[in-house]
Amino acid sequence: MHRGIATVSLSGRLADKLDAAAAAGFDGIELFDNDLVSSDLSPADVARRCAGLGLSIDLFQPVRDVEGVPPERFDAVLRRFAAKLDVMAGLGATTVLCCSTVAADAVDDVDLSAEQLARLGDLAHDAGVTIAFEALAWGRHVNRVGRSWDVVRRADHPAVTLAVDTFHMLSRGDDGSALEDVPGERIGFLQVADAPALDMDVLEWSRHFRCFPGQGTLDVTGVVAATLEAGYRGPLSLEVFSDVVREADPRVTARDAMRSLIFLEDQLAARLDGPAASVVAAAPAPAPRTDAAFVELSAADDDPSDLLTGLGFAVVGRHRTKHVTWWSQGDAHVVVNHEPVPTTLSGAATAIGVVAPPVASVAARAEALLWPALARTRGDGEARLPGLTAPSGVHVFVSAEPGAPDDWHADFEPVDGTPDASTWLGLDHVGVAVPADVLNEEVSFHRTLLGLEPGAVEEFMEPQGRLRSRALRPSSGDLRVVLNVADTAGPDRPRGITQLAFACTDLRAESVRLREAGVALMPVPDNYYVDVAARFGLDDATVADLRDHGLLYDRSGSGELLHLYTPVLGTGFYVELLERRGGYDGYGQADTHVRLAMQSRA
Amino acid sequence: MHRGIATVSLSGRLADKLDAAAAAGFDGIELFDNDLVSSDLSPADVARRCAGLGLSIDLFQPVRDVEGVPPERFDAVLRRFAAKLDVMAGLGATTVLCCSTVAADAVDDVDLSAEQLARLGDLAHDAGVTIAFEALAWGRHVNRVGRSWDVVRRADHPAVTLAVDTFHMLSRGDDGSALEDVPGERIGFLQVADAPALDMDVLEWSRHFRCFPGQGTLDVTGVVAATLEAGYRGPLSLEVFSDVVREADPRVTARDAMRSLIFLEDQLAARLDGPAASVVAAAPAPAPRTDAAFVELSAADDDPSDLLTGLGFAVVGRHRTKHVTWWSQGDAHVVVNHEPVPTTLSGAATAIGVVAPPVASVAARAEALLWPALARTRGDGEARLPGLTAPSGVHVFVSAEPGAPDDWHADFEPVDGTPDASTWLGLDHVGVAVPADVLNEEVSFHRTLLGLEPGAVEEFMEPQGRLRSRALRPSSGDLRVVLNVADTAGPDRPRGITQLAFACTDLRAESVRLREAGVALMPVPDNYYVDVAARFGLDDATVADLRDHGLLYDRSGSGELLHLYTPVLGTGFYVELLERRGGYDGYGQADTHVRLAMQSRA
Repeated sequence: MHRGIATVSLSGRLADKLDAAAAAGFDGIELFDNDLVSSDLSPADVARRCAGLGLSIDLFQPVRDVEGVPPERFDAVLRRFAAKLDVMAGLGATTVLCCSTVAADAVDDVDLSAEQLARLGDLAHDAGVTIAFEALAWGRHVNRVGRSWDVVRRADHPAVTLAVDTFHMLSRGDDGSALEDVPGERIGFLQVADAPALDMDVLEWSRHFRCFPGQGTLDVTGVVAATLEAGYRGPLSLEVFSDVVREADPRVTARDAMRSLIFLEDQLAARLDGPAASVVAAAPAPAPRTDAAFVELSAADDDPSDLLTGLGFAVVGRHRTKHVTWWSQGDAHVVVNHEPVPTTLSGAATAIGVVAPPVASVAARAEALLWPALARTRGDGEARLPGLTAPSGVHVFVSAEPGAPDDWHADFEPVDGTPDASTWLGLDHVGVAVPADVLNEEVSFHRTLLGLEPGAVEEFMEPQGRLRSRALRPSSGDLRVVLNVADTAGPDRPRGITQLAFACTDLRAESVRLREAGVALMPVPDNYYVDVAARFGLDDATVADLRDHGLLYDRSGSGELLHLYTPVLGTGFYVELLERRGGYDGYGQADTHVRLAMQSRA
Repeated sequence: MHRGIATVSLSGRLADKLDAAAAAGFDGIELFDNDLVSSDLSPADVARRCAGLGLSIDLFQPVRDVEGVPPERFDAVLRRFAAKLDVMAGLGATTVLCCSTVAADAVDDVDLSAEQLARLGDLAHDAGVTIAFEALAWGRHVNRVGRSWDVVRRADHPAVTLAVDTFHMLSRGDDGSALEDVPGERIGFLQVADAPALDMDVLEWSRHFRCFPGQGTLDVTGVVAATLEAGYRGPLSLEVFSDVVREADPRVTARDAMRSLIFLEDQLAARLDGPAASVVAAAPAPAPRTDAAFVELSAADDDPSDLLTGLGFAVVGRHRTKHVTWWSQGDAHVVVNHEPVPTTLSGAATAIGVVAPPVASVAARAEALLWPALARTRGDGEARLPGLTAPSGVHVFVSAEPGAPDDWHADFEPVDGTPDASTWLGLDHVGVAVPADVLNEEVSFHRTLLGLEPGAVEEFMEPQGRLRSRALRPSSGDLRVVLNVADTAGPDRPRGITQLAFACTDLRAESVRLREAGVALMPVPDNYYVDVAARFGLDDATVADLRDHGLLYDRSGSGELLHLYTPVLGTGFYVELLERRGGYDGYGQADTHVRLAMQSRA
């Protein structure tokens, strides 16, 4: 499809926006009038510059409040519109967006609106321009797509068409079925934007929280599918504005935006059949199952051998060509990299390894979705282990299943001496600290590439600020990633993998063993046990046992969680060890405030 | 009144919170259970520490979902509640807050709720504790104060009272009249919080946007007045949580909080009569009228003489004892300070002078409201010109009216040579750049001290971010202050007075004169004139004249604005010159995006 982006979705001055859109591979732009008005470039300059960059000007948005206007004031609207058609001639743009009227004195009369749009249509037609009429979700009288279609239908004018906007439709509760009666040739433009589910004033929601398709929770795919099924074959154009986008580097935003359209087409390809399917392209398939394999620690600044030994890990392999060792403790695996690792992260935990076959397909999917690969050398006979870099800076290595070609284990020479029998079950989850302005992009990485689905946003109070968390899990497989955003974004905030959580079968025994091994564990305040006893009605012996072992406790339904933490280590992460009982499926969120307070102590 | 603050309103660890509350002069605290649970301090430790600091523990909030509970689960509630009563015995706290139940399976039965509260009341009574029952605005069934009072009335138990919370009442549309039938002795606690008007989910609103009384738009005073008139004489306790408060220094927050209570009492004193009036204290009166007098520029880094001369200012006075000169241009005044000025501001414009008599009363009001005075030396015979420092760091000098004692003019020796006749009318407004986390406090300064009333928040897009503006004006007088928050808070963001706007009677003539004088003016893009012609239907001659003079244009009703800007000067501010016609009362907001784009050019 023809892919477009609104200039309002990119930060900077107009020339920067055009450069960024072109560099990301967009075919066209929607030009926001304010961007033109505040620019030194004349309309003809803009046209020339766009032509040179291979961008069409798909849409211009220069007027507001043009229908449902009290008749005595409509001449002024016609004059205003005519002046903007002259600007469009200079731009060489042939589609103009007219949004439904917001003004408090708008007339609630669908026939008047239709008649006024038809009169604008006469002017547009003479100028070779088509009007696309959009129902703003906060329009005074026209604020649902059914009503805007009614106006367009009654206008019955070749130059007056319907604009479909996924945000405006979905935010008002409409879905693709609202387009059932609309012939494709009467749809003049398609704007796409997603948003997180928020219960707030729709105008504020729209202004500050829109995001690219796949980053929010709206069924953008459904509306776009319905539009294509109706026969629409025009541009697919992103109109996203948000506090995040407004501050970001426009080149990063444009690449992010392009990726969202590639993903949207991939989703559409799976959903559409018939003629509409032929206009969208599928990306290479994701892995049907994604499991956690290992965490990689960098030994560049601080050797983690003492910590790992204390935790009960032992070296079980050495990399065939690099100075990298493989440690394990039961089914938990840590890879320690003694070579210099280029990283933007603040701590020593730099990468996670996942088992997500077929590896080649995941690598191809990453490339199609513009996720950056990690440059690395590869020795003869080593596994083809695609290394990808998430927006957070965390590296993700993708491995085949054990024993298959491209299994990560094959890169290591086994070391003699089997470790003791262990009750560790493996990596339960990793916590990744992400700056607020990278959260959407990080969610998008895990979702579009690995097929992880994000859960609801949870919030916790910190002694100095607020922590927002979002857990992601695949539909099949045991990988769990928890993204954490600390809204107090000081320059010394950790960034990257800050939590390694391992699961075991007998946490009480492990607690004793760890203390004997001299591993520092986070102390738990006595008040916590008074509270946990009151909250869950635990008997004295159980509470005493938890207290003696320094364990935290949570319960949900018939599931129970026991867990403990280390303090935050000098290397920028902490370790959690946990025992899930009876199908407990959470992360001990009720204890987070205690962890945050205790770990914040100097 | 007894003044309290919730520990949840202050950031940091519990001990820091207690220290901050005590240092700001609070009499007591509400203890939030999470603060205790995550603390190493035992309940007895907390009691001792509070006693040492002169703080009472006015309220404890340890339980949720205790009424409307399905009967088979109520025993667990009783156990939980009894355990928390033991904690309260350790704390020596005698009032416990019980909020209405949020759980989805809450039973919608006011008699069941009353019966369960009465059973909790039996336990509380035996422990010497009183329950204050609060209707959370998002409670499942009990979410209006009328309903919570109905429950308390039916419970008919000496240990079960009503909690009044200004946020919960006002956010649901209740006001003080909802308390008409409630006897004061049945009100067990009064929590106060304000909030800006926002149309969003009330739980999110409550969590992130509460603010101290006087910083928001709710009629907190009305609810508190009604509570006092009902006969309530207990603590007045602040329960405010917000993203801002969570990140701020708790000592700053606590002082801010205390100030809000002093202001609230001052407002109450003006509103109450009868017995209730005797429990609140009025602060010294504000000035009945506030006018703009001058702006002070520091010459420490860069001498502004050339700029001022170019603008048509001339030296008309020299300070009697300091190296300070007074420049004027018509009725516009600038004071240039050649002495070192201690400042946290980023630019050269450091202070504004206002005429707000009686000066002594304003100074006393500032002291009562804990606004910091600016330390400065004062020569013999000089005006008593109280210098105050706003939270933004801007200094405000308060002068008497011309000719009166304490008139700022009297500090200067006149200089010979009257400047040419001028069409400048004076200082129209100043723009002050404020970090986002200081906005509430800055609004509070202007509102509580000078009686300025804030207008609505307006938003503008910048090339790199978003600008929020709020204009403040006195009910009487010509002072206008516009507070600007740039949400891209980079370290190099300007802070302080960034805009000096002067008014004149003939801007076209001034534009010609300024160009002849070599003053650099902000260029206006040609596209702007095409747009302004279309928007307002201006004739060609008018547009050509605006373009020739480089003027921006706005219209509202029958009022018109002409204005022009300098670029942002190296000294950190820019100058606007404007001409208001026909009663135009705005600030040319429609042109802000053009100014932001043009001023952002390298």
